[in-house]
Amino acid sequence: MNPINDDLRELISQYIEINDQEWTHFASLLEFRNFSKNEVIITQGTATKSIYFVVNGLLRTYFINGAGEQKTFHFSNENTFAADYESFLKRSQSRYSIQALEDSTVILMSLEVLTNYYKTLRYGDKLGRLIAEKYFFLWSDRIQDIYMLTPLERYNNTKSQFPDILQRVSQYYIASYLNITPVHLSRLKSSVWT
Amino acid sequence: MNPINDDLRELISQYIEINDQEWTHFASLLEFRNFSKNEVIITQGTATKSIYFVVNGLLRTYFINGAGEQKTFHFSNENTFAADYESFLKRSQSRYSIQALEDSTVILMSLEVLTNYYKTLRYGDKLGRLIAEKYFFLWSDRIQDIYMLTPLERYNNTKSQFPDILQRVSQYYIASYLNITPVHLSRLKSSVWT
Repeated sequence: MNPINDDLRELISQYIEINDQEWTHFASLLEFRNFSKNEVIITQGTATKSIYFVVNGLLRTYFINGAGEQKTFHFSNENTFAADYESFLKRSQSRYSIQALEDSTVILMSLEVLTNYYKTLRYGDKLGRLIAEKYFFLWSDRIQDIYMLTPLERYNNTKSQFPDILQRVSQYYIASYLNITPVHLSRLKSSVWT
Repeated sequence: MNPINDDLRELISQYIEINDQEWTHFASLLEFRNFSKNEVIITQGTATKSIYFVVNGLLRTYFINGAGEQKTFHFSNENTFAADYESFLKRSQSRYSIQALEDSTVILMSLEVLTNYYKTLRYGDKLGRLIAEKYFFLWSDRIQDIYMLTPLERYNNTKSQFPDILQRVSQYYIASYLNITPVHLSRLKSSVWT
């Protein structure tokens, strides 16, 4: 078996029981795709047909706000998902763009495939519930970040959530994710390190 | 059968098939509670033991942000839920407060009851998935509101989502929900109505 699939099976197994027969069916529907560094995978305002599981690499979810500013909303590193999950489920236009920040290998899942899993896996709906809850937690945490935390607290949280992010991502994107200016980020980093 | 329960059964039936036997079990675990106008149901920072389905009345979800300002995050009118769903699922301290804005009758559900439904209803996990997705959409829309929309667009969206909200809720709370000042809200209302 492909070691890449092993990682995904292990991840799925953290959520639900999945036996060999179910796993064979599950794996048969997976579609792998490679993206080059800086390649845009979904563009805001276009159809959202898939969610993406990162096998290798790093994806960035971002949007252009009403004032025309680009805002980085989320980073997806190995063994996590990247998606505009709402537009995906509602088959509506994407409200975010998703871009590869490194050469990346991802698994694509369409809504047809996900719906197939809900129906064919013994615990398919439970898997769907837990994924939806996980997405909800991510978004809910982002709202709390925006309203409740200081920039320093957001910076420390980001380092905990993405341990190697500072080495892998440009300061510009990290500042945008933290909703502060790059100058403010430099100041934060020196205050933390001295 | 209680007409109150009929409304809830109709709502649940929009999500999943539920037969008479399942419904009898479902209804037997429901707990009704009355709250007076202005009564606080959950206080930010305390344990979150229940989610609340509004039978009659109106609830407000809000929080105190890092700067000590009270922010209104959501309104829950009849036949919708109010919850700090993340803290509820994680059994962690509530990050929001919930208050009755009118004399209200609500149905409480504990995590034990919800987990029981997941296990005993044929489509329990599907129900859980659809509730989690619905919550995710609500929060995701709030993020989009904050970043993408102008105050006027937020105001118009709010009127669509809660048609009678302007008659039922003080201008102060609506302004807080829209993340604008009460003066700004007055100006918006006169610009829309003239």
